[in-house]
Amino acid sequence: MEKGLLIVLSGPSGVGKGTVCSALRKDMTELVYSVSATTRSPRAGEIDGVNYFFKTREQFQRMIENDDLLEWAEYVGNYYGTPRSFVEETINQGKDIILEIEVQGALKVRSKFPGGIFIFLMPPSLEELQSRIETRGTETDDSIRSRMSTALDELKYLEHYDYAVVNDQVELACERIQAIITAEHHRKDRMLPIIKEMLEKVYSEKQS
Amino acid sequence: MEKGLLIVLSGPSGVGKGTVCSALRKDMTELVYSVSATTRSPRAGEIDGVNYFFKTREQFQRMIENDDLLEWAEYVGNYYGTPRSFVEETINQGKDIILEIEVQGALKVRSKFPGGIFIFLMPPSLEELQSRIETRGTETDDSIRSRMSTALDELKYLEHYDYAVVNDQVELACERIQAIITAEHHRKDRMLPIIKEMLEKVYSEKQS
Repeated sequence: MEKGLLIVLSGPSGVGKGTVCSALRKDMTELVYSVSATTRSPRAGEIDGVNYFFKTREQFQRMIENDDLLEWAEYVGNYYGTPRSFVEETINQGKDIILEIEVQGALKVRSKFPGGIFIFLMPPSLEELQSRIETRGTETDDSIRSRMSTALDELKYLEHYDYAVVNDQVELACERIQAIITAEHHRKDRMLPIIKEMLEKVYSEKQS
Repeated sequence: MEKGLLIVLSGPSGVGKGTVCSALRKDMTELVYSVSATTRSPRAGEIDGVNYFFKTREQFQRMIENDDLLEWAEYVGNYYGTPRSFVEETINQGKDIILEIEVQGALKVRSKFPGGIFIFLMPPSLEELQSRIETRGTETDDSIRSRMSTALDELKYLEHYDYAVVNDQVELACERIQAIITAEHHRKDRMLPIIKEMLEKVYSEKQS
């Protein structure tokens, strides 16, 4: 069976990764969403294996040691990471899986899973990026400046990606990402086995 | 300005390249169609520069000598070829251009224009390919056998292409090709200059 693809959707802070990813999952109901592992406690209503794989610190440590995570990080005293097994099981079933992640994490995934399709979500302009960061509303001037400075640094990571998509309108960004996924399914390497099979059939029929 | 793309649509004899290419041009009115040069005489209604660039044998010979053709071949006493200048002028204007060509020609184009996007049109099955060759209607059993044998040889050329698209239904094949063209426009290399420009603006403003 043809394997699925790992699609990594990343980009600078504030660019709208979450919004685009949610819209994409609505458009492409067959797309599987990568579930993270975490050591933080489940909140009310969160289900193990759906929202997160909830792990103890010991379990998480063992996953790190066994190279069971495509990337991991510590955030406010808790571990978060991307389990390799969930990604691999999904693509082995022939399904595509999408992972939404910040740029540092994406780079780590690239080193462990070079066959992934790495898509960088771009702001239409820096003015627009700043305004999106500002309108999150909860932030002080200092934290806006700091987030903007981080976002500028993160833009430089584009060179490590395969594709870049401008998030000018969520629906347009989704269409472009869908086109990329379709195109990647039609790379010649994925079709070569089919042609080989066709031709082998012919030549074995000729000989028999 | 961002350059256009050269899209090379090729595939075995009988697979339906012409039908798919015509349908694609209807869907994508902005797509320019590569015009061939030929030494054969114009037929009634054919316009120079639209149907063909009509050339004398001497002119055509000079194009060959000057490396002005991405590929050329002789067929029933006449020369046919793809003028490089028309392709280059089109993509320099930021427009995409499509070239429909048999597999031998596509290989020559690849060697002269490696930046092109090479798409191999595949039959859904060998039975379907044979039936398409047969229903062209004008051919004898011998010529059908010979065309089928050529088509089988041509299938092996897939490995020299970037993408493979199954022509099961013309409209589906067109959608896949459109997705490939969209995806290719979003390769990171095409976006890097935009990001660089964004960042240079920021840093020059900071310094001033």
